[in-house]
Amino acid sequence: MRKVVIYAPGDVRVEESERPTVAKPTDAVIRVSAACVCGSDLWQYRGAEPVGDPHPMGHEYVGVVEEVGADVRTIRPGQFVVGSFFASDNTCEICRAGYPSRCVNLEYVGAGGAQAEYLRVPLADGTLVATPELPDDDLIPSLLTASDVLGTGWFGAVAAQAGPGRTVAVVGDGAVGLLGVLAARHLGAERIIAMSRHVPRQKLALEFGATDIVTERGDDGVARIRELTGGLGAHSVIEAVGTQESMMQAIRATRSGGHVGVVGVAHDVALPGDEVFYSAVHLHGGPAPVRRFLPDLVDLIVRREIEPGKVFDLDLPLDRAADGYRAMDERRAIKALLRP
Amino acid sequence: MRKVVIYAPGDVRVEESERPTVAKPTDAVIRVSAACVCGSDLWQYRGAEPVGDPHPMGHEYVGVVEEVGADVRTIRPGQFVVGSFFASDNTCEICRAGYPSRCVNLEYVGAGGAQAEYLRVPLADGTLVATPELPDDDLIPSLLTASDVLGTGWFGAVAAQAGPGRTVAVVGDGAVGLLGVLAARHLGAERIIAMSRHVPRQKLALEFGATDIVTERGDDGVARIRELTGGLGAHSVIEAVGTQESMMQAIRATRSGGHVGVVGVAHDVALPGDEVFYSAVHLHGGPAPVRRFLPDLVDLIVRREIEPGKVFDLDLPLDRAADGYRAMDERRAIKALLRP
Repeated sequence: MRKVVIYAPGDVRVEESERPTVAKPTDAVIRVSAACVCGSDLWQYRGAEPVGDPHPMGHEYVGVVEEVGADVRTIRPGQFVVGSFFASDNTCEICRAGYPSRCVNLEYVGAGGAQAEYLRVPLADGTLVATPELPDDDLIPSLLTASDVLGTGWFGAVAAQAGPGRTVAVVGDGAVGLLGVLAARHLGAERIIAMSRHVPRQKLALEFGATDIVTERGDDGVARIRELTGGLGAHSVIEAVGTQESMMQAIRATRSGGHVGVVGVAHDVALPGDEVFYSAVHLHGGPAPVRRFLPDLVDLIVRREIEPGKVFDLDLPLDRAADGYRAMDERRAIKALLRP
Repeated sequence: MRKVVIYAPGDVRVEESERPTVAKPTDAVIRVSAACVCGSDLWQYRGAEPVGDPHPMGHEYVGVVEEVGADVRTIRPGQFVVGSFFASDNTCEICRAGYPSRCVNLEYVGAGGAQAEYLRVPLADGTLVATPELPDDDLIPSLLTASDVLGTGWFGAVAAQAGPGRTVAVVGDGAVGLLGVLAARHLGAERIIAMSRHVPRQKLALEFGATDIVTERGDDGVARIRELTGGLGAHSVIEAVGTQESMMQAIRATRSGGHVGVVGVAHDVALPGDEVFYSAVHLHGGPAPVRRFLPDLVDLIVRREIEPGKVFDLDLPLDRAADGYRAMDERRAIKALLRP
């Protein structure tokens, strides 16, 4: 089968490889219907994180179950499934408390590489959610977002306590930030301020439910958010970037007692203790517990209540994965879908 | 009148000074019945924070109202009152959301120095809470704790979401940490682990409701907490110190999805973004919104349901304030009460 392998910054290739098999009795192997390139894949692609040895890429996937291990009980061959990028047992105390992305038996599904024709998914019963029936083709992009970016944006909005009566600001206009807007809207937020200076992304933010666009960044962005909120700051801020500047922008744009939902993976960030202390905000985030939200998100998508798949503005055959990485790196595309 | 003034690290003096007067129509002036030395006063006393020009000290107080300004409506001369170290209007949006310590009209009551015979309290209606009648003398130490350390420990426990079914760990065995134990007990926590290596403080922690004592610190302390919690960490951790070591100890001792209540004023702390992110804990804290809790705390004390005044193990006339500072600096006393 074919899969995407990264060799060095800027160098991703589609190669022939062994098809994965059931390695543990709790595994499933799926035939991937669609995968995609994640903003977090770009850290290595841009050389901002070490690549190390050549290794497969991709951790977002939807597909049809080919084979399951002897201990798999609820997932069956032939089902169409969505799963989180982290495999979780969904039964441990941490999973039951809502944090499957920190499961005591956690495994990274992306280790095998989801940008491929087939993928081994560990802990299949805990990790995968099947759709009621085989979905229409046009639902596949939206279902694919549930594997990571939608669930991550959703967690950002939940962690930021977006809801009725609240003003929510979103730092970051990548797919996660944009889907944070969609989540905040669905959760009933009164006002949603998207921080973006890119016209196509502003347009999508407005389509997803943003009420205001702020183009300023850093301290100017903070000043603008305060202006829009009677000097107090937003009740809820979703941080969907992960840099020092974006983290401080998020904290400073939040009113005292407000909530920052942090879903941008932190890179070289050091939070000044005194500023965090005196801000009196709530900080919560981490690798999104996507599995917690998956059943509801799949349901909303299948009932066509939300269309998060709009974040894909590039649709490529798997063989052209390198073009997808390049387009996202150059910010010509918000998110690239790859079809094996 | 007499008041305490700090001149330099280790140099606090009791001096004659002008008696404060009503400066704004929303002020009250109170005759201080009791004041005390705060752990945070020690930062300057120890030279860990600059002293600057000589200035009055103390921000914890109870007393009898002498005089009120023309606009004061609910507070009357002759009432016995407790107030927070921050004056707040208790009507702005931030106050109403529960964060009077970040009130848009915030003033620091300690500016005038509460370790004194008289104290000017700004925004008297918003800041002060009167007891139903003049309290018995033996209640005065407990009422005094409500002005800061009890309210701060309480906020730590609330921010850490201490409650039924939860294991709470407390980092720091000063008065705030010990009263965090008392608060966690009152809020119904199942298990309360006090981290302390000082026998008299361990004893008081047990009296206040601790179920376990951990004497190890830093990474060893974290390992011990994990041992006691099935490898997962505590649900709730109260951070009541404010150093880099204590903050990291608190974060690392908390399970994924758990809550850290941060009430130690951060000094030279930088939180590593990636570790905070992957910990997936909730972080919340800041200058405690004591005024939020004051009516309930005063009520619990007057009804003799809690006795937080036990944290005072040194009771001195105001003139011997320097002895109180010295005893706390040398950790011979947990907390020194000063009687003008």
